[in-house]
Amino acid sequence: MKQAESFMLPEGARYLCGHSLGPCTTLAMQHLQQGMQGWKSELVNGWASLDWINVPQILGQALARLIGAHADEVIVADSTSINLLKCLLAASQLNSHRKVLLTEHENFPADRYIAASLSAINKDYQIKSVANDDILQALNETVAVLLLTHVNYRSSQMHDMALLTQKAHEQGIVVVWDLSHSVGAMPLNCSELHVDFAVGCTYKYLNGGPGAPGFIFIAQRLHQRAMPMIKGWMGHAAPFAFAQDYVRAKGIKAFLTGTPPILSLKSLEGALKIFQHVDLAQLRQQSMSLSQQLITSLAEMVPQLCLVSPEDPLIRGSHVAYSHPLAEKIVQELIARGVIVDYRSPELIRFGIAPLYLDSQDIEHVVQIVSEVAKSLR
Amino acid sequence: MKQAESFMLPEGARYLCGHSLGPCTTLAMQHLQQGMQGWKSELVNGWASLDWINVPQILGQALARLIGAHADEVIVADSTSINLLKCLLAASQLNSHRKVLLTEHENFPADRYIAASLSAINKDYQIKSVANDDILQALNETVAVLLLTHVNYRSSQMHDMALLTQKAHEQGIVVVWDLSHSVGAMPLNCSELHVDFAVGCTYKYLNGGPGAPGFIFIAQRLHQRAMPMIKGWMGHAAPFAFAQDYVRAKGIKAFLTGTPPILSLKSLEGALKIFQHVDLAQLRQQSMSLSQQLITSLAEMVPQLCLVSPEDPLIRGSHVAYSHPLAEKIVQELIARGVIVDYRSPELIRFGIAPLYLDSQDIEHVVQIVSEVAKSLR
Repeated sequence: MKQAESFMLPEGARYLCGHSLGPCTTLAMQHLQQGMQGWKSELVNGWASLDWINVPQILGQALARLIGAHADEVIVADSTSINLLKCLLAASQLNSHRKVLLTEHENFPADRYIAASLSAINKDYQIKSVANDDILQALNETVAVLLLTHVNYRSSQMHDMALLTQKAHEQGIVVVWDLSHSVGAMPLNCSELHVDFAVGCTYKYLNGGPGAPGFIFIAQRLHQRAMPMIKGWMGHAAPFAFAQDYVRAKGIKAFLTGTPPILSLKSLEGALKIFQHVDLAQLRQQSMSLSQQLITSLAEMVPQLCLVSPEDPLIRGSHVAYSHPLAEKIVQELIARGVIVDYRSPELIRFGIAPLYLDSQDIEHVVQIVSEVAKSLR
Repeated sequence: MKQAESFMLPEGARYLCGHSLGPCTTLAMQHLQQGMQGWKSELVNGWASLDWINVPQILGQALARLIGAHADEVIVADSTSINLLKCLLAASQLNSHRKVLLTEHENFPADRYIAASLSAINKDYQIKSVANDDILQALNETVAVLLLTHVNYRSSQMHDMALLTQKAHEQGIVVVWDLSHSVGAMPLNCSELHVDFAVGCTYKYLNGGPGAPGFIFIAQRLHQRAMPMIKGWMGHAAPFAFAQDYVRAKGIKAFLTGTPPILSLKSLEGALKIFQHVDLAQLRQQSMSLSQQLITSLAEMVPQLCLVSPEDPLIRGSHVAYSHPLAEKIVQELIARGVIVDYRSPELIRFGIAPLYLDSQDIEHVVQIVSEVAKSLR
């Protein structure tokens, strides 16, 4: 499953930070070069001749399979935060008689801030935040929108998307999922689970490049009713007619806003090619297998590391988190030895498992180095 | 003033479309290559080691001189549309007791759509649109926000920023200028004119690349009071503390939202280097001189073209527009002969004048070709 030749990793490095920023691939580089050459040779005509104008939809189509969506349910544009705001504004309109957005304390902070934006913009909106264990019982007929991130960025704990979506729908709640920490690491099935809205970033497991634009999924059944509250010219039915008044495009295209950053999108376009032939179920299997290897070996060789992630692989994403009082120091030492993991304050170490460029031998090496570093700190 | 060696134009082409998408420069290409190499070698560490995290402010500083602003009054991120929405939301808060946004019929449609978003989000907001000639008399104490584009994208007619800003302020109106069609083509003086908010795009005269992110200017005196209504994690006082609650950063940084698209920003970074040593007053002089040459020569050699732009160079931007019933056909023929201009429905031909890659000989050649094409159509 490992495709070492596609990933341009520094000699000897083991990269376990793909859950934060995926590495550069030969394909991303090629497509970016093509984008640059296209700009140079085609100039303004590139919007038509190179079909730049349709890149947000073309990349959306490429992404659709990865989240279990129909090709016309996904677009790529703007940042995840802006995309989330678009979804929350539209979702709140769909349930305009209710004024509560429900989320959890441990949701990704950026998502919590955007939820706060909704209540700043719409003064009578209330953001209700509960503990993970209390989400199910907080789903009631006062809640308009449920906003959750599928995989927790710290613990790697994974929500039961099927159950939560179903229970929310039973209460008439519109559901918005953030898939940033799961897309490209496991099969997802937005359509099958009747997800309403989803967003996600493309620079983690999808390797789109630093700050690569995010995506939006909106279920087909909502395409007519979901209102684009941010009325961008790229979402106009006829952007180049330059009509004075806004008329929304049909379908998800209406959720485009301003002119998309083509060069960053070209890099992502290349990166997504890697996934064209990846069996996501197999990818997930391999991620679980490598994670298990890491957990078992570290338990034996470095028992002073405390596992923070769930032991059950079925409720764990594709990174494994440990805590240790000297976490920051350990991470520095690991990076100095070519094992690139990351640190989150105050004492968390995260190991991102990406089977497209990590295999069992790499994990063995990583465990060996962690063990050496741990010994050196005694 | 012409720097032909910096601009990678196709052999023999005369490019008069920089007002729509500026050409690729060697510096933009170099910086983009560096960005790609940085991603490849530094991976996630690039956010710190390559200072990606501060690119929005660093580019803002580079841009500040071009719009006559202080270095800490400008950031680059998101699209112009999203930036405009952020400004309108903040501007409307500053004048929250008034509920009217004033703009003009002929404002750039994308800006009109974003104004409509404000009233979609804030139901009691009214968008009042008047004719160009009626703007001054429509400035009264019911108006919260005045939104105008400095240079009209069709006619090239330029507003008197000083007068309109002053008259608006006399009525307690907050002023938002869109500088997309003037930045990089003439000196601007946001600080001196006491402009409140401004936005602009970077892919026209600034040559940032297709869909390069836009900029926001907010006057220092408003940095405390202007509220970031879109609460993005990049605008948090401490984004990497991952605090549950949003606390705005000081100054304009609070108007950052999601993770910025670094590759597209790198291209812009290179493109802006070109402007470091450009005397903007001289650039403007040369633009007016070349425009006058074009107008005078076309009047003589192709009198059937009807000048749409103002004759007075002091109220004309850096493009010159003509109308002709066969405009679309003429533009096609010009492009086929290497003179790249653009067409706007139903009968407008626009000639963008960018003295950094066009000189008097180029204009002479352009007039010659226009004349040939006009003859061939008889």
